Amino acid sequence: MLALVQDGTPRLVHDYPSPRRAPGEALLRPRLVGLCDTDLQLARGYLGFRGVLGHEVVADVLEADDPTWVGRRVVTDINAGCGACADCLDAAGHHCAARSVLGILGRDGALAERFVMPERTLRRVPEQLTDEHAVFAEPLAAALHVLDELPTVSRAPCLVIGDGKLGLLTALALHAAGCPVTLIGHHRSKLDRIAALGIQTDLEQDFAPREKYAFVVEATGSEAGLASALAVTAPRGTLVLKTTTHGSITVDLAPLVIHEIRLVGSRCGDVNEALTWLAQIDPRPLIDARYPLARADQALEHAARRGTLKVLVSADA
Amino acid sequence: MLALVQDGTPRLVHDYPSPRRAPGEALLRPRLVGLCDTDLQLARGYLGFRGVLGHEVVADVLEADDPTWVGRRVVTDINAGCGACADCLDAAGHHCAARSVLGILGRDGALAERFVMPERTLRRVPEQLTDEHAVFAEPLAAALHVLDELPTVSRAPCLVIGDGKLGLLTALALHAAGCPVTLIGHHRSKLDRIAALGIQTDLEQDFAPREKYAFVVEATGSEAGLASALAVTAPRGTLVLKTTTHGSITVDLAPLVIHEIRLVGSRCGDVNEALTWLAQIDPRPLIDARYPLARADQALEHAARRGTLKVLVSADA
Repeated sequence: MLALVQDGTPRLVHDYPSPRRAPGEALLRPRLVGLCDTDLQLARGYLGFRGVLGHEVVADVLEADDPTWVGRRVVTDINAGCGACADCLDAAGHHCAARSVLGILGRDGALAERFVMPERTLRRVPEQLTDEHAVFAEPLAAALHVLDELPTVSRAPCLVIGDGKLGLLTALALHAAGCPVTLIGHHRSKLDRIAALGIQTDLEQDFAPREKYAFVVEATGSEAGLASALAVTAPRGTLVLKTTTHGSITVDLAPLVIHEIRLVGSRCGDVNEALTWLAQIDPRPLIDARYPLARADQALEHAARRGTLKVLVSADA
Repeated sequence: MLALVQDGTPRLVHDYPSPRRAPGEALLRPRLVGLCDTDLQLARGYLGFRGVLGHEVVADVLEADDPTWVGRRVVTDINAGCGACADCLDAAGHHCAARSVLGILGRDGALAERFVMPERTLRRVPEQLTDEHAVFAEPLAAALHVLDELPTVSRAPCLVIGDGKLGLLTALALHAAGCPVTLIGHHRSKLDRIAALGIQTDLEQDFAPREKYAFVVEATGSEAGLASALAVTAPRGTLVLKTTTHGSITVDLAPLVIHEIRLVGSRCGDVNEALTWLAQIDPRPLIDARYPLARADQALEHAARRGTLKVLVSADA
């Protein structure tokens, strides 16, 4: 089958072996796949991943043990835990030590004609959601997950640093949850995509807050972004680190100790919750381009271009 | 008066001006002062502090607005907040933006014949505590403050990394609070000071944990210590950063995001609480040397020697 494969350098492969469904797994046909910064990092060697890329996906179920899944349009939790450990039984298995992660860790992704995932990770997409909405379920779940770090849904001002895809989605999520949010970044054109929704935006160079923020989300994944974030987080405030960076960074952590800041890593969220929020959060202003799978390599190149937001890859030729 | 002054290089000054008591302040005569790593860092230029060093102190009250203080033996919260902001009114003023901090920030410290602090920061020392106990109230309060990061006082195993003064005190605090604690460090001689109390200790080179820890305290203040700490903190675990480092460090924060670790800065604690705990925590095995104030410069040099634990400076000649 056709697939976008990272085997040192990402490339289109025409004769990649079709996946075989193990017991408990569903065989899926992607409808639409989104590219994110993790894909770009994996393409550059992050985590040493080898295999098919792609983990933001809305798909049709072709085969499954449970026949009620067949023919359903679904999204998926990207973490496939062992199903038996404490983390899998008590939580969502996002920290199962034996987990594989779709297109990220030990499991082929969705930028292919077919892929497989355990049936228990699938979530049915409500009919009223378009594919363009549903393909955002995974990144929006990650964005909404920052709300889990707010002890109570606060009405205090929140700050999101970074106008990339995840920064914009996080600002959308906080705004939808009723938090007064300011988004700062370097690109007026990106900020303007969501400024119209009533979200306060500022170019970083113009940003001069009168007070520090008790809740800050760092979504640039850069050394400079973390330094800025530490500088504007209030004493005893929470700073959520939302993006993995490839490699080490240099940082002065004295402000973290002096101001007793909580720096919290935040990764995957609940895709079911994201599907619910997608009834009121419209992520489509973030879409920049759409490519067929046969040009997925060009889609990846496009996504890597500076200033690009969401690039989608569709199953149709 | 005689004082140990940091004015670029720390030195003994014989004619330092005696402090004047402002309204609401008490004039104090130190009985015993402890040296900590923050003093050593301030002596090397950290925070650009200029003035009298010393903030771990048990003292006698000579003068005060409230006459019931006079003649009392006291310890002090080192943070002197404005007394009027939200942080001062709702909390202890440890994060008051206008605060001064005894011997650390905008306020002369206790390595002198006299010093002043606001009366509201003073805590009376119970008679049954010796000066050698009471002088540990401030650092023990900082050590006990890590317990505030434990959602409930956990019986799950805790790990403290670093066999310096604060690492040992933190291990003592967690042990006294009923947490099964392991302390790792580089110096068998230091570890042995508290191993006798039933605290599990390990040389770092021999440390091979079977499982990660849900609660880890980093008390080395070093790049290597933080990397080790991140590597042994369990998913969704808490890693408390207990010491400020002077300058930037290089760190790979990907594990923090992937494992959704909370990295929490922790500074000062409640000295009153520490006084209570000192009835059952005996910190005296940590004392390495005692100097008179007239040799406080030599005390500081001694404290900076590799392998040294607590060095005290007493008022007596």
